[in-house]
Amino acid sequence: MKRSDLTEKILDIKREKGWNWKYIIGEIGGMSDVLIVGALLGQMKLTKPQCEKAAALFGLSESEKRLLNEVPLRGTPMPPTDPLIYRFYELVMVNGPAWKALIEEEFGDGIMSAIDFDLEIERLPDPKGDRVKFTMSGKFLPYKYYGATGNNQALGYKEE
Amino acid sequence: MKRSDLTEKILDIKREKGWNWKYIIGEIGGMSDVLIVGALLGQMKLTKPQCEKAAALFGLSESEKRLLNEVPLRGTPMPPTDPLIYRFYELVMVNGPAWKALIEEEFGDGIMSAIDFDLEIERLPDPKGDRVKFTMSGKFLPYKYYGATGNNQALGYKEE
Amino acid sequence: MKRSDLTEKILDIKREKGWNWKYIIGEIGGMSDVLIVGALLGQMKLTKPQCEKAAALFGLSESEKRLLNEVPLRGTPMPPTDPLIYRFYELVMVNGPAWKALIEEEFGDGIMSAIDFDLEIERLPDPKGDRVKFTMSGKFLPYKYYGATGNNQALGYKEE
Amino acid sequence: MKRSDLTEKILDIKREKGWNWKYIIGEIGGMSDVLIVGALLGQMKLTKPQCEKAAALFGLSESEKRLLNEVPLRGTPMPPTDPLIYRFYELVMVNGPAWKALIEEEFGDGIMSAIDFDLEIERLPDPKGDRVKFTMSGKFLPYKYYGATGNNQALGYKEE
Amino acid sequence: MKRSDLTEKILDIKREKGWNWKYIIGEIGGMSDVLIVGALLGQMKLTKPQCEKAAALFGLSESEKRLLNEVPLRGTPMPPTDPLIYRFYELVMVNGPAWKALIEEEFGDGIMSAIDFDLEIERLPDPKGDRVKFTMSGKFLPYKYYGATGNNQALGYKEE
Amino acid sequence: MKRSDLTEKILDIKREKGWNWKYIIGEIGGMSDVLIVGALLGQMKLTKPQCEKAAALFGLSESEKRLLNEVPLRGTPMPPTDPLIYRFYELVMVNGPAWKALIEEEFGDGIMSAIDFDLEIERLPDPKGDRVKFTMSGKFLPYKYYGATGNNQALGYKEE
Amino acid sequence: MKRSDLTEKILDIKREKGWNWKYIIGEIGGMSDVLIVGALLGQMKLTKPQCEKAAALFGLSESEKRLLNEVPLRGTPMPPTDPLIYRFYELVMVNGPAWKALIEEEFGDGIMSAIDFDLEIERLPDPKGDRVKFTMSGKFLPYKYYGATGNNQALGYKEE
Amino acid sequence: MKRSDLTEKILDIKREKGWNWKYIIGEIGGMSDVLIVGALLGQMKLTKPQCEKAAALFGLSESEKRLLNEVPLRGTPMPPTDPLIYRFYELVMVNGPAWKALIEEEFGDGIMSAIDFDLEIERLPDPKGDRVKFTMSGKFLPYKYYGATGNNQALGYKEE
Amino acid sequence: MKRSDLTEKILDIKREKGWNWKYIIGEIGGMSDVLIVGALLGQMKLTKPQCEKAAALFGLSESEKRLLNEVPLRGTPMPPTDPLIYRFYELVMVNGPAWKALIEEEFGDGIMSAIDFDLEIERLPDPKGDRVKFTMSGKFLPYKYYGATGNNQALGYKEE
Amino acid sequence: MKRSDLTEKILDIKREKGWNWKYIIGEIGGMSDVLIVGALLGQMKLTKPQCEKAAALFGLSESEKRLLNEVPLRGTPMPPTDPLIYRFYELVMVNGPAWKALIEEEFGDGIMSAIDFDLEIERLPDPKGDRVKFTMSGKFLPYKYYGATGNNQALGYKEE
Repeated sequence: MKRSDLTEKILDIKREKGWNWKYIIGEIGGMSDVLIVGALLGQMKLTKPQCEKAAALFGLSESEKRLLNEVPLRGTPMPPTDPLIYRFYELVMVNGPAWKALIEEEFGDGIMSAIDFDLEIERLPDPKGDRVKFTMSGKFLPYKYYGATGNNQALGYKEE
Repeated sequence: MKRSDLTEKILDIKREKGWNWKYIIGEIGGMSDVLIVGALLGQMKLTKPQCEKAAALFGLSESEKRLLNEVPLRGTPMPPTDPLIYRFYELVMVNGPAWKALIEEEFGDGIMSAIDFDLEIERLPDPKGDRVKFTMSGKFLPYKYYGATGNNQALGYKEE
Repeated sequence: MKRSDLTEKILDIKREKGWNWKYIIGEIGGMSDVLIVGALLGQMKLTKPQCEKAAALFGLSESEKRLLNEVPLRGTPMPPTDPLIYRFYELVMVNGPAWKALIEEEFGDGIMSAIDFDLEIERLPDPKGDRVKFTMSGKFLPYKYYGATGNNQALGYKEE
Repeated sequence: MKRSDLTEKILDIKREKGWNWKYIIGEIGGMSDVLIVGALLGQMKLTKPQCEKAAALFGLSESEKRLLNEVPLRGTPMPPTDPLIYRFYELVMVNGPAWKALIEEEFGDGIMSAIDFDLEIERLPDPKGDRVKFTMSGKFLPYKYYGATGNNQALGYKEE
Repeated sequence: MKRSDLTEKILDIKREKGWNWKYIIGEIGGMSDVLIVGALLGQMKLTKPQCEKAAALFGLSESEKRLLNEVPLRGTPMPPTDPLIYRFYELVMVNGPAWKALIEEEFGDGIMSAIDFDLEIERLPDPKGDRVKFTMSGKFLPYKYYGATGNNQALGYKEE
Repeated sequence: MKRSDLTEKILDIKREKGWNWKYIIGEIGGMSDVLIVGALLGQMKLTKPQCEKAAALFGLSESEKRLLNEVPLRGTPMPPTDPLIYRFYELVMVNGPAWKALIEEEFGDGIMSAIDFDLEIERLPDPKGDRVKFTMSGKFLPYKYYGATGNNQALGYKEE
Repeated sequence: MKRSDLTEKILDIKREKGWNWKYIIGEIGGMSDVLIVGALLGQMKLTKPQCEKAAALFGLSESEKRLLNEVPLRGTPMPPTDPLIYRFYELVMVNGPAWKALIEEEFGDGIMSAIDFDLEIERLPDPKGDRVKFTMSGKFLPYKYYGATGNNQALGYKEE
Repeated sequence: MKRSDLTEKILDIKREKGWNWKYIIGEIGGMSDVLIVGALLGQMKLTKPQCEKAAALFGLSESEKRLLNEVPLRGTPMPPTDPLIYRFYELVMVNGPAWKALIEEEFGDGIMSAIDFDLEIERLPDPKGDRVKFTMSGKFLPYKYYGATGNNQALGYKEE
Repeated sequence: MKRSDLTEKILDIKREKGWNWKYIIGEIGGMSDVLIVGALLGQMKLTKPQCEKAAALFGLSESEKRLLNEVPLRGTPMPPTDPLIYRFYELVMVNGPAWKALIEEEFGDGIMSAIDFDLEIERLPDPKGDRVKFTMSGKFLPYKYYGATGNNQALGYKEE
Repeated sequence: MKRSDLTEKILDIKREKGWNWKYIIGEIGGMSDVLIVGALLGQMKLTKPQCEKAAALFGLSESEKRLLNEVPLRGTPMPPTDPLIYRFYELVMVNGPAWKALIEEEFGDGIMSAIDFDLEIERLPDPKGDRVKFTMSGKFLPYKYYGATGNNQALGYKEE
């Protein structure tokens, strides 16, 4: 059984039952909306208690339930062909250099983690047209300037 | 004169003077940090008053000043090879399908604009390690279901 | 059930019945020809009333009907290998820079929306050979020069 | 001398003089705006009389004037990274299959020429936001079903 | 039913029956060899009378017969991995610039049509080894230098 | 000195002198037009006597003359972005499978040589619009079914 | 039936029977090992007598037997991901320019044929580790410098 | 001044002086060999005290010294064409799935950081041929399963 | 039967039985964890005794058992879309040039073998967060500077 | 100084002096023709004594001489556009799977080294047209099935 087959099955049931994501998220609970939907679409895993709830909701077999608890091979084809997803890609392509310059000036050499990362999507009412609001934060991870021990036994040198 | 040559010149002066971005942004002002730095890196334009200030700051010629006021050919090579920028690319690649599902359920068929778009980067202090916080909002643009007039004269049908 | 399977089923029925697109468009109605055909080919969604009509016409199941009402993952492989579609791609590739220069001079920094967009295809009789006429208009979306609030609370600065 | 160097020179003079495209088009005349700007950007050629006017306007050498009269190696990098140009690319990617279906049903097997092609860009005032209007027509070219003479001496069979 | 499935079915029957292309072309008739074989391989369409003959020959269903009359989504993967097809690709890659220079000098700005195009393949006996002879001609299509009407109402300017 | 610099120099002189290719081909002579133009564009070599004539015509240095006699690193970027060259690429992409089927049925397993290859371009007058005529022939090279000697000492088995 | 399905069937039987390639080559005979294995893997064709032997050995149907006699669409995905095949790719990538220089100096302008080509693989015992020995030869094919007849009627000019 | 120009200058001086990397690393000190060499090749930054030493060693200008202290745009072209670097790429391509399976079983859902990462290269003497030994460790970063606050205020749920 | 089908079957059984990799590795034994898991994922082969154990454990057929003993077509799609695997890819992309410089200075011209290669993954406890430790060594293979015998009969010249 | 600039300089001198590769190889000596030419084209290094001879021959500076002794960043663009080099690429693409099958059956799991590799190119006179003969051998490197020590201290298990 492939993860993509399970995703297709889940979407079939969602359509047949006429459920929306809000309802499904409410039934499974325990994590952000993006993570739960991401797991059902095959990009994240659910925890075991969540898998139990998802299995009950969708009538999954024992194997399917366990598959939802496995870490999937993440990733989707790039560049995105879908306009909604492409706009985010474009934001990275156009603004990436400025984000890099500003983050490095504030935090030093390093990256914003895409793993220790939290994201919330909200509707922002606006008379000129409602807006999609993304609030997200990722832990800053500084490049570590270790000596050559391979064991991290020596203290890392501080960036300066 | 190419825009990339002007970018290199500006970075050379910034380095020589020992300025940081915060100082430069303060001198030019009038827009968000990301937009000002983006313009100086060749991805955005500055308004005419900003160009005057930038020209005074960097000692630019009349032509260079005008070039900063022109809309550049936007975009940088993808996929990004730099780890800091790649992490954002990865967020889109992994979470794109979930964002699409959630935005479409909330707003209907359409996209979040990458043009009518506002973004703020902040440092979020955290005892487990400070975080990079992105707050951003883009206007939701619904797919318009027009009749075939080509002139937008007929009323667009509402999505249902 | 995948959207591509539904598209194949619809095309099979169309062929079996000997219908042309004009007839199908007439039966479903309510939007431009391009949008209706695009939805049946898996690139657009139909509204609920249209889905009812399409389901009656093609004898679709409840699930298939609902699938037609879902926003698909848009996009087709690029560059197009088909000569008819390629010619449009070529027009963008060859004329893109001139379009950009002229639109930006007239409207300022921004884009023509591909979302709030209306298109009509007509046959233009011509003694030297009939012509395909495209009349299309998209809303101009100016790049917004916000301050860094992330909430669009501050007024956007006007382009100059 | 490369065509791209001539393009850069022309853009430098345009910037230095503070001219806009409208003025330049008015000085050269004789073809649509898109074709004139396209030629100055290195994607089209100008006719000899136009080259005389362009040379007088920009102060070009005899060689540069002749270069403007040569057919360039057309084409720009794809996919377009610039948002304005990308939106047109997206229109082709998303709507290409529907355009193909509708044109073939109306005209039969063939293509819309990208060579015998006419295009006008207009501003369409709209209280909800002005629109960019493209009116374009290309000659329909039917696929010819010749017999195997290689000389076009036999009559082409009509499509049916 | 996909066009590629029909192609596979036709090739299966051809193999089972032990027919060669010459025989099949003779049975269907009415167009050049390349066009008939191209249609059976899924790159061209057959006319209705030809479809009748092909259906009788291969024992096709009504739907399969109609599918052969539809314009396919043309194109095959590039660059070609097969040595026979690659040699033609190489001819274009190596000689393309010279062909462009010579055709433009003789005909002016424009292209050789790949749509109004006729081709014959012959065996050319040669004591040093027989040769494959291609005789092909395509209509020359001059770039039209229209004014900006979008309707082709104004006279096109002549190239000079 | 790179071959591309020599090509640029030759094109500069051609433009300055106002020569066309016909004149240049007449001065150098001894091979087909495509080969001579191809050599001057950096895709073929000229023979020594031709190099002498080319050197006299263009006023080349001894080194430049010898460079024209060297075999270049052949090839140009693919897919071609220029419409004229692209049409040939499209002919291969669309018709390649049919050409393969017909050549293999007539000649057996093998290829048409792109090396032992002759090509003539002519203008074919036609009241419906003049045509570009390509007559070309390449030696057929049968796949040799050798035994495993690595020395071609054993007789090749005949294809059957 | 696709050639890849036949390849899979043959490999299934080989595995089930516990045969090695040496045995299979011995049963079919008549060509080099590489050609026979290549044909069974879908990259070459077998002659009719060989097909009879292969059909008897593997218990193939009449259609499968004939499919083995057809010229396949040759080629495999590149760059190779398998380390064994990649090393050959690397040899071409690193040594290609030197091979070109040496072959052209010895033979003149032309290529080594990949069609009239013979190859033997041997084990070369070596106390420091046995070696894989490739002995291969391909016919040298000189670039022909024809006049522009398209019929090869004129004598080709000799390279000099 | 581009970082790549500085890299070229440093390599020119290293060659002229006849220094090896060991000597240079010894002069600059303070971090692992890989980090120091990486910085001089344009992939890492040096700390300010290291920059002082590097400037003294190579005779760098004030601007060049500061450039070495800037975070570069990291990354090199992929796939690597150089055999030494390609072997590491191949290790990832072939063993990536197994590494993923084993790390996730041991640590849970997450990644090994490429930022908080330490590496040592050693020569491992071996009578059958000395070996290159890599000892490296990266901090394990667990995927955080936050609730949708966007502010990391809620406690992250533990993976189970 | 394709290797990927066998992989899917093995993963299905592992999931159904609730086994982890540690248990499976313990049952099969005889090689490093990475090699055993790699073989079960279709990137490595198992030895015959290991295949017997794997067949007993997973209840494989005789054919499936033999397939596990065959060398697979190694390799997975690149660049990796999965974050865990991508981090290793990034390490190569960013550090490749420095690794090359240091290995070549220590060992001379050559590569670290990806074939005669040993790797161990360990958990390295760390109060700041446990670390993934990779210890790996590959045989250094010096580029051999042979004379042109093709038989390795002459002594290889030593690098200097 | 970049290696590609040195290559261009060497080719300029070779052309100016009218030397052929045979003469240059004779002057430098000590390795196979392919290695010497490869080094002068920037794909290999020369030993120090060879560098002395090359420096004397070409009149190189001390820095240029040392650059020839450095290991270059190997590799050229792929796929090769030049027909001569492409034919070798095609041999790998078409025959790779058969080579893999035969080498693995004879030697077991492993690769033919592209590093410990010897190659000779010869002219093979043949009345039907002279042939290019490649005799090459590479050391077979068996995949080592180590236990997970990372130090190669345990004995590698033998393949079976």
